[in-house]
Amino acid sequence: MEPNRLTATEAARAIAAGRLTPAALMEACLARAAYREPKVRAFVHLDPALARRAATAARPGPLHGIPIGVKDVLDTADMPSGYGSPIWAGWRPRADSAAVAAARAAGGVVMGKTVTTEFATRHPGATANPANPAHTPGGSSSGSAAAVADGMVPLAFGTQTAGSIVRPAAFCGVVGFKPSFGTLHRAGMKVMSESLDTIGVLARSVADCALAMAAMSGRDFGDPEAKPGRAPRFGLTLGPEPDKAAPETVALLHRAAEAARKAGAEVVEFPLPPILMRAAELHPALMNMESAQAIRWELETARAQLSPVLVEKMDWARAQPAMLLAQARQAQTTAVAALYGLMGGLDALLTPSAPGEAPEGLGWTGDPAFNLLWTMLLGPNITVPAGTGPKGLPMGVQLVGRLGEDAAVLGWARWLQAALG
Amino acid sequence: MEPNRLTATEAARAIAAGRLTPAALMEACLARAAYREPKVRAFVHLDPALARRAATAARPGPLHGIPIGVKDVLDTADMPSGYGSPIWAGWRPRADSAAVAAARAAGGVVMGKTVTTEFATRHPGATANPANPAHTPGGSSSGSAAAVADGMVPLAFGTQTAGSIVRPAAFCGVVGFKPSFGTLHRAGMKVMSESLDTIGVLARSVADCALAMAAMSGRDFGDPEAKPGRAPRFGLTLGPEPDKAAPETVALLHRAAEAARKAGAEVVEFPLPPILMRAAELHPALMNMESAQAIRWELETARAQLSPVLVEKMDWARAQPAMLLAQARQAQTTAVAALYGLMGGLDALLTPSAPGEAPEGLGWTGDPAFNLLWTMLLGPNITVPAGTGPKGLPMGVQLVGRLGEDAAVLGWARWLQAALG
Repeated sequence: MEPNRLTATEAARAIAAGRLTPAALMEACLARAAYREPKVRAFVHLDPALARRAATAARPGPLHGIPIGVKDVLDTADMPSGYGSPIWAGWRPRADSAAVAAARAAGGVVMGKTVTTEFATRHPGATANPANPAHTPGGSSSGSAAAVADGMVPLAFGTQTAGSIVRPAAFCGVVGFKPSFGTLHRAGMKVMSESLDTIGVLARSVADCALAMAAMSGRDFGDPEAKPGRAPRFGLTLGPEPDKAAPETVALLHRAAEAARKAGAEVVEFPLPPILMRAAELHPALMNMESAQAIRWELETARAQLSPVLVEKMDWARAQPAMLLAQARQAQTTAVAALYGLMGGLDALLTPSAPGEAPEGLGWTGDPAFNLLWTMLLGPNITVPAGTGPKGLPMGVQLVGRLGEDAAVLGWARWLQAALG
Repeated sequence: MEPNRLTATEAARAIAAGRLTPAALMEACLARAAYREPKVRAFVHLDPALARRAATAARPGPLHGIPIGVKDVLDTADMPSGYGSPIWAGWRPRADSAAVAAARAAGGVVMGKTVTTEFATRHPGATANPANPAHTPGGSSSGSAAAVADGMVPLAFGTQTAGSIVRPAAFCGVVGFKPSFGTLHRAGMKVMSESLDTIGVLARSVADCALAMAAMSGRDFGDPEAKPGRAPRFGLTLGPEPDKAAPETVALLHRAAEAARKAGAEVVEFPLPPILMRAAELHPALMNMESAQAIRWELETARAQLSPVLVEKMDWARAQPAMLLAQARQAQTTAVAALYGLMGGLDALLTPSAPGEAPEGLGWTGDPAFNLLWTMLLGPNITVPAGTGPKGLPMGVQLVGRLGEDAAVLGWARWLQAALG
């Protein structure tokens, strides 16, 4: 197989065994990018000479020589960080973000910066879906999802405030993992919502997500390839806005539930109680009111360089009563605590990753309705590819766990993939 | 009175009434700084010409024309931000931090950057205590406390992870207010502990804290000068390490309790249950393990420029099992939730602000033992000046409230000041 098609786990093994060099792996990734970037536009900054030097200088570690795409909301000391906004064009931070420093310390090699929507919000970047360039790759981790899906890089950083890892991963046909809130430190990230923003990864296997997260955090994410001693118990839900699910999404969810049952799982309906519906309702207030605080400098000094859609959201947020933010945080705290009891006996929730296939056009990255509640609940969310939809575009299904149960959810995601065949 | 001696509230009133101009107020503050800085060393960056221009250009708003000292862990677009570390010497951020942008939008005028300890941790800066320059001003908000105490500026930003607002404020004889966690957004702050770091203010009156916080956050912090309709009920505690309280600290606490009782308050012993003791025990793990993630880039690329005391703490943190961080966060969440019940019927906890007077020497900013639990519990903490100790140095007493009860705690702090006479 071409080295750029290897998963991070496979590539790390090949490098450790001396069958592959970091330089050769980077070369293959750069060649793929050179070929495909004119169409996909996943990278906002890609300096092949710098990437080659970094590969040669890769440190030993569990990610030794693995090329990584870094979503351009995470600072890098040796590359510009633009946060998807013309206000920050050409900005050169002095330091690596904490997450990038952790990746490099574990042997990872930053290949380049991947396209983000404006400050990881709604206004899209230039990236196209590799499966069909007339369709959005999703957002806000647009470039990371597209680059991983297209074989330009085995691993990439994403961040999620509503659905910015899971949705683009599903649209592009890769695995997207939002770990528990707070797993990777956000120093050097352009943080918007302090209560929601979470750094995660996109890759081509569940095991890669575990490998990368363990390497960067020092925590145990388990071995998703290990065979569990029992079958899981899943709660089945279409989420807080079931009407937004396309027929193919409903069908896919039921196919996934059936496959899980056939493989021995118990799958039970999981109705959303008012405490979770309330949390979902208040997600936009939490996200936008905190974001409006975060980019106060941009709003005050460079308003004309913000997209109209962002200005509109921020103006809405600033017009809300301040008490709404306190209520939203309280609703989050209450729902997070309640989830332990509500999910008692369940290993994970099985739910759609997105409303359907990636929408046509590059002007809209899609609706996070199937993600925002799960981000609000702070636990691990993972999407795994689960075939294609009526237009031939990738679709995924999502598993959601309780805060801190990352290893278990990764294991069940791998189990589900096997059950799906 | 010289304008630089006015409180922020008095100065704002004088400016609104046309009795004082922002330029004249800034001139008085600059004159005081020019006279005293050789001895106090509160500012790490002070450009009088820039401060004068900013005063002239001050925007209308509740802080119109109020000079503000900005702790040098908060980014400013027009001044260097050094975070108290030679690694960041001369660094020029592109943007204001969210807190600074909010202050400027409310009419505040950044006078300069105040000294912080190294990354707001232990290794001290050059600032001396204005009451006696042979003594520490406390830390990490050293320059902010000293500048406010010395009449160089009416208002300054501080940040607190363990005791970095309350302790220096008490040592210097000013009011220090750590609001509820998350009140001011930390975008553009050099964040160390994501679970603890909180931006607050130092001032010469309780009302100034309410004025500034309301102006910057848009939230209601009440009117601390309003006469409450009843007397409070305080819980009395020496905190998790009572043996660290100097005799004068114990005496001061009891004097404060007696004065409160005489003014009508009910003051009852508040014993610390295991759930709170456990939270206090795990504070150092939470703080240092998160901080070691935050400054990963510095640790990897510029270790020799970090202080030995910080390197030692970070190495300790990195040697801990990753699970300890999860346990510390869990202990925090549990304790925060439990505090509501534990404090049922109490308006606030009355507790020392620091072990005693400011220690002699500038090599150590003092022990945060009387602060770290209250920071861990995320609610408002405030210290008010309460006389002097045996060496003639300032001392304070502290009130602690539940998350979100900021306005009430500010009101009771003002009430307590009046009771103390």
